[in-house]
Amino acid sequence: MSSNFVKGLEGLVVAQTALSRVEGQMGRLTYRGYAIHDLARQATFEEIAYLFWQGELPTRAQLDDLKMQLAHARMVPPNVMQLARQLPKEADPSDALRTLVSALGAGKPLQKPDLSEAMMLTAQVPVLLAAFHRARTGAEFIPPRGDLDHTANYLYMLSGEMPTPAQSKALNVYLILLADHGLNASTFAARVIASTLTDLYACITGALGALKGPLHGGAPSRVIEMIEKIGTKENADAWMREAFARKERLMGFGHRMYKAEDPRAEILRELARETADPALFDLAFNVEATALRLLHESKPAERIYTNVEFYSAVILHSVGLPKDMFTPTFAVSRMVGYTAHILEQLADNRIMRPDAEYIGPAPRVVKKIEDR
Amino acid sequence: MSSNFVKGLEGLVVAQTALSRVEGQMGRLTYRGYAIHDLARQATFEEIAYLFWQGELPTRAQLDDLKMQLAHARMVPPNVMQLARQLPKEADPSDALRTLVSALGAGKPLQKPDLSEAMMLTAQVPVLLAAFHRARTGAEFIPPRGDLDHTANYLYMLSGEMPTPAQSKALNVYLILLADHGLNASTFAARVIASTLTDLYACITGALGALKGPLHGGAPSRVIEMIEKIGTKENADAWMREAFARKERLMGFGHRMYKAEDPRAEILRELARETADPALFDLAFNVEATALRLLHESKPAERIYTNVEFYSAVILHSVGLPKDMFTPTFAVSRMVGYTAHILEQLADNRIMRPDAEYIGPAPRVVKKIEDR
Repeated sequence: MSSNFVKGLEGLVVAQTALSRVEGQMGRLTYRGYAIHDLARQATFEEIAYLFWQGELPTRAQLDDLKMQLAHARMVPPNVMQLARQLPKEADPSDALRTLVSALGAGKPLQKPDLSEAMMLTAQVPVLLAAFHRARTGAEFIPPRGDLDHTANYLYMLSGEMPTPAQSKALNVYLILLADHGLNASTFAARVIASTLTDLYACITGALGALKGPLHGGAPSRVIEMIEKIGTKENADAWMREAFARKERLMGFGHRMYKAEDPRAEILRELARETADPALFDLAFNVEATALRLLHESKPAERIYTNVEFYSAVILHSVGLPKDMFTPTFAVSRMVGYTAHILEQLADNRIMRPDAEYIGPAPRVVKKIEDR
Repeated sequence: MSSNFVKGLEGLVVAQTALSRVEGQMGRLTYRGYAIHDLARQATFEEIAYLFWQGELPTRAQLDDLKMQLAHARMVPPNVMQLARQLPKEADPSDALRTLVSALGAGKPLQKPDLSEAMMLTAQVPVLLAAFHRARTGAEFIPPRGDLDHTANYLYMLSGEMPTPAQSKALNVYLILLADHGLNASTFAARVIASTLTDLYACITGALGALKGPLHGGAPSRVIEMIEKIGTKENADAWMREAFARKERLMGFGHRMYKAEDPRAEILRELARETADPALFDLAFNVEATALRLLHESKPAERIYTNVEFYSAVILHSVGLPKDMFTPTFAVSRMVGYTAHILEQLADNRIMRPDAEYIGPAPRVVKKIEDR
């Protein structure tokens, strides 16, 4: 293997960013200089969106203005609403969302992504998801409510019921925490695609396809499956030892970037303690403790911690989302990071065209088909 | 700017590949060790597909078998055919194709990309394009013909008429030449997306979004526009000097990878000389010569050559394709490279998660909204 080649691009600096900063050795994550802990406690999702898009936290007037713009942008064209009803009911909502975002772009002239389109698409992703989810369950579409903020409106459109303040708060914190995280695979894919000067729909469609991958955003639903299979805290040790014996990977632990606890995991754990069903939290907490103990036993030299996915799963389950909506709800949040990265890429763009090391056959001569 | 950071990933080795090899200093391109000149002269598109997918050129029996498999795989599910008819008629066919490929994946369970899916999707891309193109022009869909090969069947489905042998040959050579080219932005995007272990539809959807970008696959249609605007060979010099004065970029010249003539440009030039309308070829040839002369005049130190896009445009126009079908026809060809790269990525995968250099604000404290 060539010394030039770093598998998975680990440690390779491929862009400059003024958005989020992941300091994995210290377990620190900041958004434009603000610690994620402070933002989770003191801000709303819309304030975070403003911060990423504009560089600063908004004043009250700026925030009100953004909320109004997002609420107005929720109107999805009728042909795309129709498609949401026609997609196969068994489709994974992540695939449905990707198809609907792509369809939103089909018919619009090629346009360089800008902030106004970024806001519009961020506003429409929850509407697209709710439209598909209602249709697949045979329920009527529930129009968005302009008086509700991004988070509450999303939950309202899914269920038709007003979320409780605790649900809104829990999902709001989740959406803040997942909004950006440097050059994860889907955000990086969005920047690579954007570098060709294609449109925003193309960039986001690519990012959504990557987000679904089980090594990326596809993990949280499998955390809940694991917790459900374990069933009782007494069963955790035996179940996990069997999973290890089967060489299964435990979902919700370990992250390439963090050699300390992921700060998002810590915030989500406390949020789950406050807002989740106490029996579920107790089970999850014991599953987590058992997993960390067994991981340490089997790999004492490695620093493996709970990652963001573990308690994300508990929170998303607690606010009433079905498992297959976990990954697309991650997308509801990450839309802010995707769009901010795309705009950042385009502000000083060069097409991303790396090299590969050729390891194939030496030059050879084409034989006639009869002689092969 | 950090010394670590290479804009556009230029020269950065991010993968190993046994597929194509671009030797830009020498103007050489090989597919699995075979020179592109030899393949263009002696092989068909299906043989190239076999070469990329299986590693060797096929025997007669292997080729017949692949052709049969591709012909059988052309059946597109009814719900996606319906969507092809429902998309806005004014949609860019590249956007339509992206949406239809995404829709093909919606409803299928998450599956690791494999060769059988790669073949199926490669077979279906021309069908999806023809279905959309016929629908947008108000014409009936023309079912694929199992007795026609990939190239002839594509042209037949678009027009309803059997292509001439010269048309089939010209498009066949084009499809061979464009089938793979290392880690261009769309192929790289496909590998980044694949590295999350998502499905094939997600990877291809992302790649198609990138391919459309004006810095990538979106250029050839603009070459024809330029040639048409110039109109006569006598006008070329004056027109281009004005374009330079307006700081416009000439389409069809220059390529980051090549410091010698792109071998594909040379083959396509000769192909155009043989098969294109002589008046169009003569005009294009003079436009090319004028452009190279003026580029050399204005940037004498740089080695700028005709790129693959220039005569691609002439060939695609000559076989009767409308301008907005140029980029998606590029995709018809590149499907082979995309799928081969995705399978190669997955054979020894690690999620692609590079780093960014943080250049944003230093740590700061969240102020209450009233105090901002």
